[in-house]
Amino acid sequence: MMIDVEQAVKRLLQQDRVCILAHASPDGDTLGSAYGLYYALRELGKQARVRCADPVPSQYAHLCREYREEDFEEGFVMAVDVAAPNLLGGLEAAYAGRVQLCLDHHPTNEGYAQESCVWPQAAATCELVYEVVRLLGAPVTPMVADCLYTGLASDSGCFKYPSTSPQTHRMAAQLMEAGADYSRINERLFDTKTKGRILVEQAVLNSIRFFAGDRVALITIPRSLLEHAQAAEGDLDGLAALPRMIEGVDIGLTLREKEEGVWKVSVRTGSRADASVLCGKFGGGGHARASGCLIRAGYDEAVRMLTEAAEHLLESLE
Amino acid sequence: MMIDVEQAVKRLLQQDRVCILAHASPDGDTLGSAYGLYYALRELGKQARVRCADPVPSQYAHLCREYREEDFEEGFVMAVDVAAPNLLGGLEAAYAGRVQLCLDHHPTNEGYAQESCVWPQAAATCELVYEVVRLLGAPVTPMVADCLYTGLASDSGCFKYPSTSPQTHRMAAQLMEAGADYSRINERLFDTKTKGRILVEQAVLNSIRFFAGDRVALITIPRSLLEHAQAAEGDLDGLAALPRMIEGVDIGLTLREKEEGVWKVSVRTGSRADASVLCGKFGGGGHARASGCLIRAGYDEAVRMLTEAAEHLLESLE
Repeated sequence: MMIDVEQAVKRLLQQDRVCILAHASPDGDTLGSAYGLYYALRELGKQARVRCADPVPSQYAHLCREYREEDFEEGFVMAVDVAAPNLLGGLEAAYAGRVQLCLDHHPTNEGYAQESCVWPQAAATCELVYEVVRLLGAPVTPMVADCLYTGLASDSGCFKYPSTSPQTHRMAAQLMEAGADYSRINERLFDTKTKGRILVEQAVLNSIRFFAGDRVALITIPRSLLEHAQAAEGDLDGLAALPRMIEGVDIGLTLREKEEGVWKVSVRTGSRADASVLCGKFGGGGHARASGCLIRAGYDEAVRMLTEAAEHLLESLE
Repeated sequence: MMIDVEQAVKRLLQQDRVCILAHASPDGDTLGSAYGLYYALRELGKQARVRCADPVPSQYAHLCREYREEDFEEGFVMAVDVAAPNLLGGLEAAYAGRVQLCLDHHPTNEGYAQESCVWPQAAATCELVYEVVRLLGAPVTPMVADCLYTGLASDSGCFKYPSTSPQTHRMAAQLMEAGADYSRINERLFDTKTKGRILVEQAVLNSIRFFAGDRVALITIPRSLLEHAQAAEGDLDGLAALPRMIEGVDIGLTLREKEEGVWKVSVRTGSRADASVLCGKFGGGGHARASGCLIRAGYDEAVRMLTEAAEHLLESLE
């Protein structure tokens, strides 16, 4: 059942032993929401814990610095920023049917929880959690502010993405005034790269190829790259956006080798070409500006098929 | 003479034919301030023009889309975001002694104008210009909002830099509500790279070297790079920050070849090592976290001198 924020707060006020679930492969928003709510509930004298199937990545370690794991029997199970039960990862089996309340901002939220409060207009679930914390009457301590700022900044691309609203900025202002250590958090989130990431970027930039008079750009991520760069899966985040960022490029293609002769293709387009049309030719699909497909072919053949299809698409627009 | 914003507004209200000077090699803040004020003054029925020694870079072209050059005799000369007369570049000779009002946020502003209003706490001169526009009673049209948002976002690193304040965020919220096309502006400013920039990043990442157990990282920018990458000087912006961004790196070194055997060295450090101490050994200096010096030597010798000095500095901290 969908409920509004006041109802969600009413439900939470009745609970004393709360388990907060974050999604697997956790990002700043699910962790910021979970820990922010944890600290707020603790301020209200309630028992709480945070559960996540995967470890907290190092750039979010500051969220846990005042966390204390307590032994108690869970009386209430809630999920934050978790759009579907399978996103709980390794916790799905234990918790999937038991989620009583879900706070989320994904418009695709499946309503799997007993009660769900979803703000699809919010740039981050943390926007909703901030309202929950205020309505709970919990103090927004510097620790709570750090958590909510982390989620807000990370999910909005540091206020860069179109999802950013005036309300996102006003919340950032209030969290800064509440003591969020925004300067250090921003440096950690946006100006720090692992050595593995640097080596990945080096290899990817070296792989860049231009076609159709520089209107199509292509990058390649071979299977060997992660090992070569001693990089983690997370070091590949956001790479598919790179080729389309280049001035004048209408279609950006990313070929990631899944196994010998199998390529996972990501297509990003500007406002003119439709990425889902291009991917549709290869049995894939998605959105107008971001789509994907799978191609089974040798590298040269895969590149030829894709770039020819991209050129045809561009010609058809003229 | 230093004046406050109310006095600056009073002065501006008396003027009808205003020339607004931006600094040479213009950035988003000087251009956003100049054009934002231009449109606001036009709304008040005043004549105005913008002057800059250098052309408007393509990523800021949207600021000029409703600009009309009019023929009138300048009755009042003002400068925005110009901390010293020599920053006027090619306009210095014509205007240096004639600036009647300066609006700026640089704490180093020399007070060269007859009257100066400086807000050193502001993340951008556009913060001050916004207040001026409001006190002038001019409407904040979508065009004015676009200009001021552009300056605010570009000078604050899209709200990432420590200079960002709660007031910066609140102003962003208000400009978005006034119709700033923030989504397109952000994409243009922060998610668009020239092909030249991509080739520059490729070469710079390929040049990266690690020393002292990965605690020192060094990049090299040879003279040939700009030509090789068909890149502009602006395509080198911000590169010196790159080596220090890498996790675990305490000292980031950038060697830029000025002429055969002459290297302009930029040093960036984390909170531990003092960059000015390192540069001081080579006759340079600057700030604790960002300094520079000049080294005359062959490449290998320059690298040896710098990395040895960097290692000694790190050892002395242990």
